[in-house]
Amino acid sequence: MSKLWGGRFEKKPEEWVDEFNASISFDQELVLEDIEGSIAHVKMLQKCEILNEVDAKKILSGLQELYIEAENGSLQYSVEYEDIHLNIEKMLIDKIGDTGGKLHTGRSRNDQIATDMHLYLKRRTAEIIDLLDELQQKLLHQAEENIETIIPGYTHLQRAQPISFAHHLLAYFWMLERDKERMKDGLKRIDISPLGAGALAGTTFPIDRNFSAELLGFNSVYENSLDAVSDRDFILEFLSSSSIVMTHLSRLAEEFILWSTEEFQFIELDDAFTTGSSIMPQKKNPDMAELVRGKTGRVNGHLTSLLTVLKGLPLAYNKDMQEDKEGMFDTVKTVVGSLKIFIGMVKTMKVKKENMKKAVGEDFSNATELADYLAVRNIPFRQAHEIVGKLVLHCIQNNMFLKDLPLHVYKDASPVIEDDVYDILAPTSAVERRNSYGGTGFQQVKYQIEKAKGKVELSLQK
Amino acid sequence: MSKLWGGRFEKKPEEWVDEFNASISFDQELVLEDIEGSIAHVKMLQKCEILNEVDAKKILSGLQELYIEAENGSLQYSVEYEDIHLNIEKMLIDKIGDTGGKLHTGRSRNDQIATDMHLYLKRRTAEIIDLLDELQQKLLHQAEENIETIIPGYTHLQRAQPISFAHHLLAYFWMLERDKERMKDGLKRIDISPLGAGALAGTTFPIDRNFSAELLGFNSVYENSLDAVSDRDFILEFLSSSSIVMTHLSRLAEEFILWSTEEFQFIELDDAFTTGSSIMPQKKNPDMAELVRGKTGRVNGHLTSLLTVLKGLPLAYNKDMQEDKEGMFDTVKTVVGSLKIFIGMVKTMKVKKENMKKAVGEDFSNATELADYLAVRNIPFRQAHEIVGKLVLHCIQNNMFLKDLPLHVYKDASPVIEDDVYDILAPTSAVERRNSYGGTGFQQVKYQIEKAKGKVELSLQK
Amino acid sequence: MSKLWGGRFEKKPEEWVDEFNASISFDQELVLEDIEGSIAHVKMLQKCEILNEVDAKKILSGLQELYIEAENGSLQYSVEYEDIHLNIEKMLIDKIGDTGGKLHTGRSRNDQIATDMHLYLKRRTAEIIDLLDELQQKLLHQAEENIETIIPGYTHLQRAQPISFAHHLLAYFWMLERDKERMKDGLKRIDISPLGAGALAGTTFPIDRNFSAELLGFNSVYENSLDAVSDRDFILEFLSSSSIVMTHLSRLAEEFILWSTEEFQFIELDDAFTTGSSIMPQKKNPDMAELVRGKTGRVNGHLTSLLTVLKGLPLAYNKDMQEDKEGMFDTVKTVVGSLKIFIGMVKTMKVKKENMKKAVGEDFSNATELADYLAVRNIPFRQAHEIVGKLVLHCIQNNMFLKDLPLHVYKDASPVIEDDVYDILAPTSAVERRNSYGGTGFQQVKYQIEKAKGKVELSLQK
Amino acid sequence: MSKLWGGRFEKKPEEWVDEFNASISFDQELVLEDIEGSIAHVKMLQKCEILNEVDAKKILSGLQELYIEAENGSLQYSVEYEDIHLNIEKMLIDKIGDTGGKLHTGRSRNDQIATDMHLYLKRRTAEIIDLLDELQQKLLHQAEENIETIIPGYTHLQRAQPISFAHHLLAYFWMLERDKERMKDGLKRIDISPLGAGALAGTTFPIDRNFSAELLGFNSVYENSLDAVSDRDFILEFLSSSSIVMTHLSRLAEEFILWSTEEFQFIELDDAFTTGSSIMPQKKNPDMAELVRGKTGRVNGHLTSLLTVLKGLPLAYNKDMQEDKEGMFDTVKTVVGSLKIFIGMVKTMKVKKENMKKAVGEDFSNATELADYLAVRNIPFRQAHEIVGKLVLHCIQNNMFLKDLPLHVYKDASPVIEDDVYDILAPTSAVERRNSYGGTGFQQVKYQIEKAKGKVELSLQK
Repeated sequence: MSKLWGGRFEKKPEEWVDEFNASISFDQELVLEDIEGSIAHVKMLQKCEILNEVDAKKILSGLQELYIEAENGSLQYSVEYEDIHLNIEKMLIDKIGDTGGKLHTGRSRNDQIATDMHLYLKRRTAEIIDLLDELQQKLLHQAEENIETIIPGYTHLQRAQPISFAHHLLAYFWMLERDKERMKDGLKRIDISPLGAGALAGTTFPIDRNFSAELLGFNSVYENSLDAVSDRDFILEFLSSSSIVMTHLSRLAEEFILWSTEEFQFIELDDAFTTGSSIMPQKKNPDMAELVRGKTGRVNGHLTSLLTVLKGLPLAYNKDMQEDKEGMFDTVKTVVGSLKIFIGMVKTMKVKKENMKKAVGEDFSNATELADYLAVRNIPFRQAHEIVGKLVLHCIQNNMFLKDLPLHVYKDASPVIEDDVYDILAPTSAVERRNSYGGTGFQQVKYQIEKAKGKVELSLQK
Repeated sequence: MSKLWGGRFEKKPEEWVDEFNASISFDQELVLEDIEGSIAHVKMLQKCEILNEVDAKKILSGLQELYIEAENGSLQYSVEYEDIHLNIEKMLIDKIGDTGGKLHTGRSRNDQIATDMHLYLKRRTAEIIDLLDELQQKLLHQAEENIETIIPGYTHLQRAQPISFAHHLLAYFWMLERDKERMKDGLKRIDISPLGAGALAGTTFPIDRNFSAELLGFNSVYENSLDAVSDRDFILEFLSSSSIVMTHLSRLAEEFILWSTEEFQFIELDDAFTTGSSIMPQKKNPDMAELVRGKTGRVNGHLTSLLTVLKGLPLAYNKDMQEDKEGMFDTVKTVVGSLKIFIGMVKTMKVKKENMKKAVGEDFSNATELADYLAVRNIPFRQAHEIVGKLVLHCIQNNMFLKDLPLHVYKDASPVIEDDVYDILAPTSAVERRNSYGGTGFQQVKYQIEKAKGKVELSLQK
Repeated sequence: MSKLWGGRFEKKPEEWVDEFNASISFDQELVLEDIEGSIAHVKMLQKCEILNEVDAKKILSGLQELYIEAENGSLQYSVEYEDIHLNIEKMLIDKIGDTGGKLHTGRSRNDQIATDMHLYLKRRTAEIIDLLDELQQKLLHQAEENIETIIPGYTHLQRAQPISFAHHLLAYFWMLERDKERMKDGLKRIDISPLGAGALAGTTFPIDRNFSAELLGFNSVYENSLDAVSDRDFILEFLSSSSIVMTHLSRLAEEFILWSTEEFQFIELDDAFTTGSSIMPQKKNPDMAELVRGKTGRVNGHLTSLLTVLKGLPLAYNKDMQEDKEGMFDTVKTVVGSLKIFIGMVKTMKVKKENMKKAVGEDFSNATELADYLAVRNIPFRQAHEIVGKLVLHCIQNNMFLKDLPLHVYKDASPVIEDDVYDILAPTSAVERRNSYGGTGFQQVKYQIEKAKGKVELSLQK
Repeated sequence: MSKLWGGRFEKKPEEWVDEFNASISFDQELVLEDIEGSIAHVKMLQKCEILNEVDAKKILSGLQELYIEAENGSLQYSVEYEDIHLNIEKMLIDKIGDTGGKLHTGRSRNDQIATDMHLYLKRRTAEIIDLLDELQQKLLHQAEENIETIIPGYTHLQRAQPISFAHHLLAYFWMLERDKERMKDGLKRIDISPLGAGALAGTTFPIDRNFSAELLGFNSVYENSLDAVSDRDFILEFLSSSSIVMTHLSRLAEEFILWSTEEFQFIELDDAFTTGSSIMPQKKNPDMAELVRGKTGRVNGHLTSLLTVLKGLPLAYNKDMQEDKEGMFDTVKTVVGSLKIFIGMVKTMKVKKENMKKAVGEDFSNATELADYLAVRNIPFRQAHEIVGKLVLHCIQNNMFLKDLPLHVYKDASPVIEDDVYDILAPTSAVERRNSYGGTGFQQVKYQIEKAKGKVELSLQK
């Protein structure tokens, strides 16, 4: 069968070359968007009297049939026709005859594929925004249950200061909030129609790009036809925002994995999100959390990949740009899947409050309290820090905690210390008193939860 | 000299370990921001009556002296004090005595470094936005001079359709417009104050974070103290937006390099932006364009780097995060430098209009015109394409162009072709007639230029 | 159906979680290697009397049946059984009953998957080495045809000095030679058996790892069981070597694309490796070359990805490591496909010798000859360079070439110049005289071709 | 001051453009290699009678003076002279007059910089190999001290099976062994001389490339002059091997960080490799380990960067390639520094054997023993696994360990279990019995240590 573009060619590619060249194996993911784009294009051609009513009706009815078949998954694609556009066009011609050839009037595959991708990514981004919102809700719910649950706060994975577990979870709430904002900002640059830009230079037909854009629900149209077909920024930006989402999830994954260890035992993940070992019968592995952590690499890789592809490409379309799709599809799949996994894990995880409580009772995470106590009593902070550091060393060498030191030891260290020091060393008191704005004090955490509720968008619907 | 945090330590690091650990060799770039942050912090401490007026005044005057010395470049940093914060604190104590130690009340290095970086990146981003705007202006100026200059438009680096040179340049205008928007969107997430988040959990001192944020010109404050000190999204986003800027410049660089070759000869870059060879006396190399193209790799690398660093880090601060700075500084330097180079190159380049004109007169980039001509005469586009493809092949085999074919050959190919076909084959006519919205038609290009003028922000000031 | 590891679990994952977790959708690529590994394992268990002969025979016959079915593509995998190992084990049990459960004695999925991947990558690397060799041969053949074909040599994409086209092609020969060496070096670290390392710690069964390694054709065994199951270096190294192969191909691709332009016209790619445009009937696009250039990004991305995955993973196996496979498979596919494309393109491309010749006759790439001429006549090279630079400028301003300058102009520039200067300005003479070792002189190129022939390994077989 | 290549130029770059273009700020790192290369070049020119003895002596004496000044750090570089080559050449001319201009005969900056980098990287690679060897020794020493120290072995960061701590450390020994091999393999492709390749095409002077290569200690010379000046594989390969080194260190870093937590408490890092907090007096942070983990990103970034730079560059030299240096220098610095840090940390770390012992006594990492016990008694492994899984669940629900279950419970689970089951449940016995080749059994570990000793190369010297 001859190529649709074969007029000037004397020879045609061998099959394995066709396969290397063709994109149909993956761009079939865009079939619905492609047909939708064609429907809008034909309606516009008719409105602008480039196609007569008879032809337009014929083409539209053919496209609508194909759309239904596509939804049913009954279309059969062929590598011979390279990509989704030529496959659909061929099917249309098979269905309605030569009139199908008029579909391509005033359009090129270059603006067509760009249109498909803008449509696709607009929808997937919206889906991701909803999932981010849903995960925020799950975090918020767990936070509300754990305002007064105290765990060690860490820096350098060393215990630093006791904090509210709600406060810890809410840190992720705000990361996701920025993720949502970034995705929305990116949407502004996705929601633009390239349709009608032609191969690169526009067309001589009196088309109406705003009309087809409107039919497809786009917010605006590209101002420059070369830019319209060459722009892949919107995908780079999406990949980058997705990398940041995955980075956030990888951090939470790391914490879930740590907290599930024999050594920490702060949470227990639901059986549904863990697996066993083929050899070690006792194992309950946090596989899903590990997998999401690992999949961060995948998305980072896709970003590196597309940046490499686009570097140094002259205008306008170059075949290299065909490499923009698989990474985008896989990123959507990865981010959607990872968010769903976390929504499930956060919702079902069991918080082992007693273990957390025990942990904060037996460490030095209250040392800052003591230093602040001294600072308030007018000892320059640097000296206070020095004094407390030495008391901690003394404790470690004697296998004690700060709460166990007798008052005379404190007095020796600094005469300003009084009996009330023991109150401030209690973890709950330490948390409660960190009441600066955004701090871990219970009052602050409650305020923060209220604020967070105002950010969640899907709450009324679900 | 003992470490400021050395209370509980029995031994101190050797010098080479100190050097490996210390960040002062690069974070001194933040010295002004660091002192500004401290000044705001002290004013806040005084306002909140955490510091008394006498101490506050003493500290402020010390800091102001240090600020002036920093501006003069007369400060001497020491690796022993690790980072910019402890260096400045040490200098302050040396200057005003133990009171200097109170500077650190209600603050940690963790929120301090975050504050410095937010301040720094807010300023650099604004600078980059201005440079993007300036480069847009230079492109716009060249475009206005070249509305009717016709060059071959390319896809696959093969001549596709003739276009207005202005139209080609304007494609980059719109890329930069998106870059500006992306930088502005990123700014929203930079312009937030982490100051007062403490080490991770807030503080027990009755501080007023909004007050210090306002003094520093920040738009808002972080809602969660753990997030405030752990967030490096704003840098990732900046690096990503910068990678996209560099990707755009790399594409323009590639075109400048191509257009400067002996083979294309479409432009001549100014001597000021080219260099010679140490061995080949005739060479005039487009070094600056090549260098910018190469520096794309650098920024992509910094992005990969920070994504790798942050992957899987548990909350809150981890030392790994010290690796966030050098890549950010170098990216700022690279993007600023590359934009300046392009501003200069675009402004001074010489457009060789005659060569462009000659090029479009002797190729097949008018073939689409012929196909459209047939399509308008009711031949399905696919057949029209086939007919023209064969005519092109005939021309190539006979060493002719389409304009050279006699009418009877056209008639043989398709009876609908008439004498008027020769008009539509002329390049100027081909360009003029692509008058769809955003197309290369002169009228469209003029309209586009007007629209573009409305996007440029610095025009009135410069 | 219950999980094979489900003993201690009270709940099992939902289906969508299973799908997220499972690797069977991609690790089925390893089915033959997996069964081979099992066969070797069983033979070893029997030899070591861990399995009795009856059981061993039963299992082996079941595995051999499965192997044939796998080759025929008739196996049906299920997501429920997660991965290729448990799928095969389940099929075995279905086929031969409970005895199948003994297959897993003294082995874990951790050493099993590692074994599969070592086997797989060993074969694919050998295949890639052969393809590299074949491409070298095609380059060598074209080089032999073009020893005295002269083209401009470029630096900075500016014409620098005329060179033999063979010499240019041979530069790629040597790049591929290093690629071959690197792949072979990598093989040393692939060709090691992890089988028998168990989950991480070895096994209590008296297995013979050397025996199973020998059956599988491995060169040696891992010395440390934790390392055996945690090592993914061999994949990183393969990805890295593949990135370098793709970098080389991307450079040749860039040159093919440039040389195929209307502006250069140095080669014509065979129709079989180009495609047309759906809208522009005259187009003949070097799609394959562009696609290979673009696919460089893909492989770089996979490398970034796996580096990200492995960063900071504690020993031994973590689920993140499941992310090692898809990138490896896709890299194999990409490198194999790209090499095949280039083998075809190089073999069939048409060298337009006349255009090359014309190009070198009309440029300044002979300027170094003149400078060397002066240097030989005892003018310090720096002065010679200066003199020639000025003569070139004079020519450009007067629209001439060096060969066109009258002798008196030369004399004015430097009295040492005589009539013989015109001989050394001829391109052929310029090439011929660069006869230093490895230089472009014809004699050197011939010598180089002989040396290159000694490096090609498959020549006798094909 | 005029450019050395300025003959044909009418204008020269402004200072800020010079700065953007110049590489002297970083390539001065190569000063010694550059002068050495020049010395070898001049000796060769004299030997080949291209330079007479008088000139050669004069130049050599000038270069030798400059070498000494370079070593003393007393050279003053200027951005005006762009790079290290022109800076040195200018200094030479200043020192010895116009004869200095003859240094550049038969050489270009393109082969010169390549020579410098090959020399540089050859040395640094050798240094890194020595440091890898030294770290192996430190691991080996700790291993010898800890053969019978038992810790939990982990998969998925869940306790899996008890292992010898020596065995765990030795896993890293073998990773480093592969790193050493990879670096050595890379050396083969570094140890090649490009000197004499000229700008791209060789030279007309009768030079002897083998002679200068020999003087510089190179093993061979490049066979093709274009390849010689365009090849940056050797750096890519070095960056890749370095990324793998850093990946290994990042994994060990992660383990050191985990083992230093309050929760694990398996080791204590020496004070010399930890730091404190400016606000929390009790903190002892594993900063060095974190920093090395973070610096993995840095090296990965440099690799991404250079891969991006080289993608799609046509032959021969392009200015983009100037971007190859900073990443290479920084990688050398990072790898050298990180290895030194780990050498120090491993040497000085305190192993808390008691804590490790306590850990393995109170977990389920002996469950596999029980399953193997059943398998040996002829219960198919899959059933054994199921039985043990249920016993573990029973224990967890009753807050017990396997060793605490009374015999009748075992009997109920499987009648084949006898009294001897309690012996095999003891951690030491569990470790001891994993005596398969490469396993964690004490005998195996001792054997492995002997084998490892044979791999260490510097042992006799230090």
